[in-house]
Amino acid sequence: MSDRPIAAIILAAGKGTRMNSSLHKVLHQVAGRPMIEHLLASVRALEPQKLVTIVGESREQLEKQLENRVDFAVQDPQLGTGHAVQQAEEALAGFEGDVLVLYGDVPFVKAETMRAMVDRLRAVDAPAAVVLGFEPEDPLRYGRVIAQQGRILKMVEYKDATGDERACSLCNSGLLAARSEDLFALLNRVRNENAQGEYYLPDIVNIAIADGHNCAVITCDSPDEVSGINSRAELAAAEAQWQALRREEVMAEGVTLRAPETVFFSYDTHLAADVVVEPNVVFGPGVSVASGATIRAFSHLEGATVGEGVEVGPYARLRPGAVLEKGSKVGNFVEIKNATLAEGAKANHLTYLGDASVGAGANIGAGTITCNYDGYFKHQTTIGPRAFIGSNSALIAPVSIGADAIVAAGSAVSRDVADGELRMVRADQLIKPGWADRFHDAMKKKKADRK
Amino acid sequence: MSDRPIAAIILAAGKGTRMNSSLHKVLHQVAGRPMIEHLLASVRALEPQKLVTIVGESREQLEKQLENRVDFAVQDPQLGTGHAVQQAEEALAGFEGDVLVLYGDVPFVKAETMRAMVDRLRAVDAPAAVVLGFEPEDPLRYGRVIAQQGRILKMVEYKDATGDERACSLCNSGLLAARSEDLFALLNRVRNENAQGEYYLPDIVNIAIADGHNCAVITCDSPDEVSGINSRAELAAAEAQWQALRREEVMAEGVTLRAPETVFFSYDTHLAADVVVEPNVVFGPGVSVASGATIRAFSHLEGATVGEGVEVGPYARLRPGAVLEKGSKVGNFVEIKNATLAEGAKANHLTYLGDASVGAGANIGAGTITCNYDGYFKHQTTIGPRAFIGSNSALIAPVSIGADAIVAAGSAVSRDVADGELRMVRADQLIKPGWADRFHDAMKKKKADRK
Amino acid sequence: MSDRPIAAIILAAGKGTRMNSSLHKVLHQVAGRPMIEHLLASVRALEPQKLVTIVGESREQLEKQLENRVDFAVQDPQLGTGHAVQQAEEALAGFEGDVLVLYGDVPFVKAETMRAMVDRLRAVDAPAAVVLGFEPEDPLRYGRVIAQQGRILKMVEYKDATGDERACSLCNSGLLAARSEDLFALLNRVRNENAQGEYYLPDIVNIAIADGHNCAVITCDSPDEVSGINSRAELAAAEAQWQALRREEVMAEGVTLRAPETVFFSYDTHLAADVVVEPNVVFGPGVSVASGATIRAFSHLEGATVGEGVEVGPYARLRPGAVLEKGSKVGNFVEIKNATLAEGAKANHLTYLGDASVGAGANIGAGTITCNYDGYFKHQTTIGPRAFIGSNSALIAPVSIGADAIVAAGSAVSRDVADGELRMVRADQLIKPGWADRFHDAMKKKKADRK
Repeated sequence: MSDRPIAAIILAAGKGTRMNSSLHKVLHQVAGRPMIEHLLASVRALEPQKLVTIVGESREQLEKQLENRVDFAVQDPQLGTGHAVQQAEEALAGFEGDVLVLYGDVPFVKAETMRAMVDRLRAVDAPAAVVLGFEPEDPLRYGRVIAQQGRILKMVEYKDATGDERACSLCNSGLLAARSEDLFALLNRVRNENAQGEYYLPDIVNIAIADGHNCAVITCDSPDEVSGINSRAELAAAEAQWQALRREEVMAEGVTLRAPETVFFSYDTHLAADVVVEPNVVFGPGVSVASGATIRAFSHLEGATVGEGVEVGPYARLRPGAVLEKGSKVGNFVEIKNATLAEGAKANHLTYLGDASVGAGANIGAGTITCNYDGYFKHQTTIGPRAFIGSNSALIAPVSIGADAIVAAGSAVSRDVADGELRMVRADQLIKPGWADRFHDAMKKKKADRK
Repeated sequence: MSDRPIAAIILAAGKGTRMNSSLHKVLHQVAGRPMIEHLLASVRALEPQKLVTIVGESREQLEKQLENRVDFAVQDPQLGTGHAVQQAEEALAGFEGDVLVLYGDVPFVKAETMRAMVDRLRAVDAPAAVVLGFEPEDPLRYGRVIAQQGRILKMVEYKDATGDERACSLCNSGLLAARSEDLFALLNRVRNENAQGEYYLPDIVNIAIADGHNCAVITCDSPDEVSGINSRAELAAAEAQWQALRREEVMAEGVTLRAPETVFFSYDTHLAADVVVEPNVVFGPGVSVASGATIRAFSHLEGATVGEGVEVGPYARLRPGAVLEKGSKVGNFVEIKNATLAEGAKANHLTYLGDASVGAGANIGAGTITCNYDGYFKHQTTIGPRAFIGSNSALIAPVSIGADAIVAAGSAVSRDVADGELRMVRADQLIKPGWADRFHDAMKKKKADRK
Repeated sequence: MSDRPIAAIILAAGKGTRMNSSLHKVLHQVAGRPMIEHLLASVRALEPQKLVTIVGESREQLEKQLENRVDFAVQDPQLGTGHAVQQAEEALAGFEGDVLVLYGDVPFVKAETMRAMVDRLRAVDAPAAVVLGFEPEDPLRYGRVIAQQGRILKMVEYKDATGDERACSLCNSGLLAARSEDLFALLNRVRNENAQGEYYLPDIVNIAIADGHNCAVITCDSPDEVSGINSRAELAAAEAQWQALRREEVMAEGVTLRAPETVFFSYDTHLAADVVVEPNVVFGPGVSVASGATIRAFSHLEGATVGEGVEVGPYARLRPGAVLEKGSKVGNFVEIKNATLAEGAKANHLTYLGDASVGAGANIGAGTITCNYDGYFKHQTTIGPRAFIGSNSALIAPVSIGADAIVAAGSAVSRDVADGELRMVRADQLIKPGWADRFHDAMKKKKADRK
């Protein structure tokens, strides 16, 4: 039975009014990635044959985000979770296998947990459905799973529960696994005779039990794994929880975080052992940092590759395509975009390097700007090894500075500089002795007159 | 009785030795505003006819801060809270109405609470005084309000309280309301026969009760509302509490705070729904941000108006008078002061725009500086729509750059540029082949010689 | 007996595998200083005649760090704490006095605690050994000190302890004091008949007791004082604890920290009363700030001296040798290194001042760069009082700008400027009417063609 295919149905029809947002709830980001992408990354570990996302409000946002990666089914109007799952029937026509029901706003369910649900479904006692339960600190408002030794006796909404049932602390996460052939057959029998007039997914469990079938519950390790995100405050709490966990992992891997609570990672940040990160550092997506590098305070990195022993910051901004090779250095108020600094190259102060390649050992003076944009196109700057770019220079791309070349301070260089050449673009020093004294006198008088 | 005028007496005579400061205690700031201003803003909601501030130590600081907005009465020497309130008698000569006694260092009492005190005073049972009580987690050191069903039996200092009285958890916040005609009459009867030789305000309640009058206590929702600020640690705690509350409100209104604990608001910060704020952002006073804008990490905003969909930062500093219109962009290490960026204008890197107006769609190159100050006066820079300012340019104000004009990189522009014109201020490219190679040889030799 | 000399043995032979680092454990930093240096600073208050550090793995790192300041003894192989202390015997040959045994990874033991251990050793009842005990919240895994009224009955490892012994909450910190003549004699009698085959230091206490000697335990105030640092997470926790304590102290001394949890101090940061520190400020080593100064958000200071009433930041970076005299100002995106700003001087925006001296009242325009490095040597820039450096200027050191002199915006100044002189280095304004319009047309066409 372990070769049976797997499908996942992801419920994402509700936009999430409590988010108070024009952006669909499941597209709000945690750790630099839309929450539904966290869920997809986990479910993909199970190699599902089919992925169906149930969409409704603002569905064009989801269709754009997930285009060509999942199938879509529309739920309109929205008549409850059972009704939502039912919409996947057409998309799963012909599919025969095990189906997981997931929620776009419950994004941190682990792949192992999903796998455990499927494994339980495939066990020899062949339950008709497997429910994922959890035990929260405060179970009050959740529906309960009344079970004995993992076998479900009854699924019950909190408002319908008796005192004894409410005393039971095992709650329903909403996640469920069932065989495709059972799932839709059971859903067709669910009624909406309740106050909301909705079709509830957990009802299929009660129907199966009434039919004499076995239904099972398994419990996830931590209630955090199945906590839903319905407001910006819950979004922030999920982010905080994700960051706290990641900080612990990173420290265990040998990274020094001087003030862990001030360092923010993205879902894919990679730091090697013996990296030191000072307080107040933000890692956007796509960053990799090699051993021995130091990321100093107030740095911001996105899409950057930082080599061994590199020193970054304080106040360095690395943007996508920044590649800092071994022993290079990027200092304060420096922005690097789509540019490589070869071994030992330095850009220490107040510089913008965009669309550039800097040779080994080159020194980029304070205030250097690569003029990479002419208002219409981007152009490349190439700086040779050991070149010295004097302070406050503008390198007007496309331009190439040769090996060992020197650009004099304050030069706007618009033509290539050869190896070993000095390029200076500077007017004569105009000297006006006493002019400043006369200016001061005149201005002081003017200022006095104005009062 | 609801047409009776209201007066408030604010006690602020003590400078606050535990602050260890030359600045008067009530002028220390929370959320970018002196604490006494928070109190004034709340009391003003009751439209008081009279506001009397009792001053003493460092009174010139308070007189300057509150000039023309309140009356002052001096308490010198300082003989207790009752004595302090008594000093307001002259300033309230002729006033007949309800009087609230407030404290400059208890700044977060809500207007609704003050209103509730006055309403209670005006109730049909006409209490002679209304005391604001609170129930702290640890009531040990506070004076107690011994009461039954809101009617006060006795006010008692902790040190004079019996065991039974100490077991009572209702504490005296110090805030009190009384009719003007009662207040000063009762105060005249207060004695200072105690260890400190002070005249205590709560004594008027006991005197009124002894006279057979009814005195009432009402309780505020949270003890935080009446917590006093007497040290820098308490100041920091009040700030933290204020920020935490404001962050929750802002998220509920539809703002994403990726790391709420790292975002600091001012008392008047206004953010619309669907604003995204990254970690580490500081809002000074006077900031308003429209829907869809993103405030990236490490940004600092004061007195700025940010339009729809604008992107700010990372590392952007907006100073008073910065106006960023729809879809404009201010990037890293950019400072904007008293300057408008019209729709779609961009200043992405290492720029200072001061006293400037930038037209729609204009592009301000990296390293651009408006030279707005000549050491004596400030001057204006005007940049036309779609103009392109090349990198590392200096615009020497007063100066005007026309629509669609181009300033070449590295130019110091001191005269107006016409529409559609190119302005280049750049010396010839001086080329010295081999010079750099010779320089390197000479310097390496010199360096070796020095060792 | 109080004139007896003191020696300290510091155990630092284990590199710390749980740190997952190539850097020796005790060299990892807390508050900007290697942890072993914190310990050394405390023990030095006792004026020890001898300091012996027991080294082993990565000992070359310790030998380099502590060169000429301590004696070293090598422990190889590492056979337990008793064995480690034994290695100091040779280095202490001829020393007769009181010996403290300390641990490089237990760096926050206070000097007063060490002093109390020695004082107890010198008391009239002359204990053979003094053990430092502590009472942790969760004592489970620690060795126990079974004692009555400060007299030790037995030292017992947790795994060997009986139920009654485990119920005792007094734990062994590992720190110990003994007379040199006793210490090594007792150590020679310790056996390694245990599961690990190690020689345990606490065994000397049991041996002394068996000999009929008195051994004493004293307890430190807080278990935090003797907590060991064995992983990056524990390192971060120690840093957090240190910072929290220091923030409280600093606020008590009259400093305003608007958001204390976002301000990071070094071990030697000195702030006077009435300094205001905004959120997100990092103090590296060697910083002193005088009264009335404001350190604004996102500032980073190292080795800097900040005078009265100075305003720093936001986004100011002060590096070693920065001296800001009374009333001077350093603004956003400004870096100061080895430079003095005299009274009232200002560098408000986007500037690098390195190896410079700026006179009183001078104004450094936005975008000013001192070109202090020619690729081989550093050179000095001197700016006279009241000089005005126009924006975007490059001062090519060595260079001197006179008093009241003016440098025009955009100038690259390579020769000295006299007092009261105007220096302008600027090419003619090249004007090409209509050129920009033609350029835009051509580029728009090119862009359209590419599509």
